[in-house]
Amino acid sequence: MSEDFPSRSHCPINYALESFGDKWTLLIIRDLMFKTKTSFNEFLSSNEKISTNILADRLRRLESLGIVSKEVSDENRSKLIYSLTRKGRDLLPIMMEITQWSGRYDPQTNAPEALLKRLEADKLGLIKDIEAGWEHK
Amino acid sequence: MSEDFPSRSHCPINYALESFGDKWTLLIIRDLMFKTKTSFNEFLSSNEKISTNILADRLRRLESLGIVSKEVSDENRSKLIYSLTRKGRDLLPIMMEITQWSGRYDPQTNAPEALLKRLEADKLGLIKDIEAGWEHK
Repeated sequence: MSEDFPSRSHCPINYALESFGDKWTLLIIRDLMFKTKTSFNEFLSSNEKISTNILADRLRRLESLGIVSKEVSDENRSKLIYSLTRKGRDLLPIMMEITQWSGRYDPQTNAPEALLKRLEADKLGLIKDIEAGWEHK
Repeated sequence: MSEDFPSRSHCPINYALESFGDKWTLLIIRDLMFKTKTSFNEFLSSNEKISTNILADRLRRLESLGIVSKEVSDENRSKLIYSLTRKGRDLLPIMMEITQWSGRYDPQTNAPEALLKRLEADKLGLIKDIEAGWEHK
């Protein structure tokens, strides 16, 4: 990905694609947002089998974009802990809409049925509940 | 992109990435959805300067996924007219959330201020209005 960002236009769709328009970045954001994964090795262990070099590149890029931040673990000074910034957390409504669309169109989706029902019935309430959970961490 | 789709998992985020997780596909969907572009040459003329081979590949792929359909133009039998299917139109809420996020975080965004204000104040109403416009075409 180019570093002279955004390189193509300031169209809002393009800005997002320059930020996370590839086959891997949203999976890392998913792991941080919903799977409480925080470390390089945890991201590496996800089902989609990201490679170490792509993962390292995407984490570095997410940091440079201010979507992810990292700090040294209190318990293990050789371990880095990643988390979403406010800008990263603000991707939640996009992730919810993506989940709903895929739940509708992938016959083999593994999106939980209770989640899809809640998205149909009360998306805004669900988003608020998830955000409130983050506040209390 | 692999043809044994989806190749990695049936996670809903992954399903979406296998459908449109690259730097170009959502720009074509944007052009169809908001810029009333319908032809190969119109997509080619967009600011981001997609190449002919990537455009042809992505249109073929979008068709195979049932997101885009094509038909021969009534006025010019050598011209193909592309349009979004229901599955493609159902990407509208994702596109709106992306627009809102980029409008918030890209200081140079070209998203119209009136659109961003409406997204803050009445996103569901805006989505319904756009969908109603499609129904009347």
